[in-house]
Amino acid sequence: MTAFEVPDIVIGRLPIYLRALNLLFEAGQEFTSSQELGQKLGIGSAQIRKDLSHFGEFGKQGTGYEINYLREQISKILHVDREWAVALVGFGDLGQAIAHYGGFASKGFHIEAIFDNDPAKVGQKTNGKEVHDIKNLAKIVAKLKIKMAIIAVPASAAQTVSDILIEAGIRAILNYAPITLTVPESVQVQYIDPVVHLQRMTYYLV
Amino acid sequence: MTAFEVPDIVIGRLPIYLRALNLLFEAGQEFTSSQELGQKLGIGSAQIRKDLSHFGEFGKQGTGYEINYLREQISKILHVDREWAVALVGFGDLGQAIAHYGGFASKGFHIEAIFDNDPAKVGQKTNGKEVHDIKNLAKIVAKLKIKMAIIAVPASAAQTVSDILIEAGIRAILNYAPITLTVPESVQVQYIDPVVHLQRMTYYLV
Repeated sequence: MTAFEVPDIVIGRLPIYLRALNLLFEAGQEFTSSQELGQKLGIGSAQIRKDLSHFGEFGKQGTGYEINYLREQISKILHVDREWAVALVGFGDLGQAIAHYGGFASKGFHIEAIFDNDPAKVGQKTNGKEVHDIKNLAKIVAKLKIKMAIIAVPASAAQTVSDILIEAGIRAILNYAPITLTVPESVQVQYIDPVVHLQRMTYYLV
Repeated sequence: MTAFEVPDIVIGRLPIYLRALNLLFEAGQEFTSSQELGQKLGIGSAQIRKDLSHFGEFGKQGTGYEINYLREQISKILHVDREWAVALVGFGDLGQAIAHYGGFASKGFHIEAIFDNDPAKVGQKTNGKEVHDIKNLAKIVAKLKIKMAIIAVPASAAQTVSDILIEAGIRAILNYAPITLTVPESVQVQYIDPVVHLQRMTYYLV
């Protein structure tokens, strides 16, 4: 980490701040404070001020943060002030649910290409997108300049799919398969495994 | 935190260790080491040894960890050596996908009651479970002694649903609604919001 690099844990909190600011904005509120945000998010107000101070001076003494300005600034910092094309690999039950989920597109993440290796699924259409043979992944990902992908294949296939994606130029992977992927340091990976979250909570239940 | 309490961040890594151990076990492997686990998980081997040392002495000099023994021990620590009943609130697209997902039951988490407030959904059946009116939640959750719940309702309804669940005795919530919940300290909450994960990664993509 260089001197000017922001810790990854801070980056991880920015989407949470953005989500809360968007909700306040949609509710018609104009200003907020680190105290109000902190209370809503269960995060200390000093932590919020320190996190944001990595990127500039966003608040004003007395009035606090202007919600619309702050959400625009955080969107820019996170590079979500633009549209992103996303590849989806796996068109089983989970992949289909992901393809139909409206929450990605509304936040600027568009599933532009879907892949599977099952001949019965290749050629199917969903939301106007065709399911392609995974053999054509490299060609299509390059043509559409896609940098992000979602993996929704069984655990046993996930590492192979990850290797294919990275070879094709993908630099960020959201992995729904319940397995930790081995990737180069230059590639981002995030995980969604609801069982892991449930198991973390049962520790506290007797 | 008392002197004997294990940091929550350590608890959060145990399900990841368990997942890796289960995969190795299913592949027929008998022994592993903190080095091998660390390499698979992108976690330092010293960190893994330190995490596990909170709970006892599981490895042997020379042979390392016996996989089956260690996964049994971690299962006990996490209280996932038993079956858990789970309530699901929300039977829209997401709730239906969750109800059909086989990955919960195979890990001992059984959706025993489903709730919605939409008269068109109440009375529907899935996997032999009926969708109940949310008005009957307290009664049913108490009768079935359910302590865990999954929220799959729109963000605008999630806090109200959370309050109802906690009032009914729920002590752990997996929240799929894209909003941070306000809950008492005695209640566990974990979040699943794929957009948050995508936005965290786009920071690193230019």
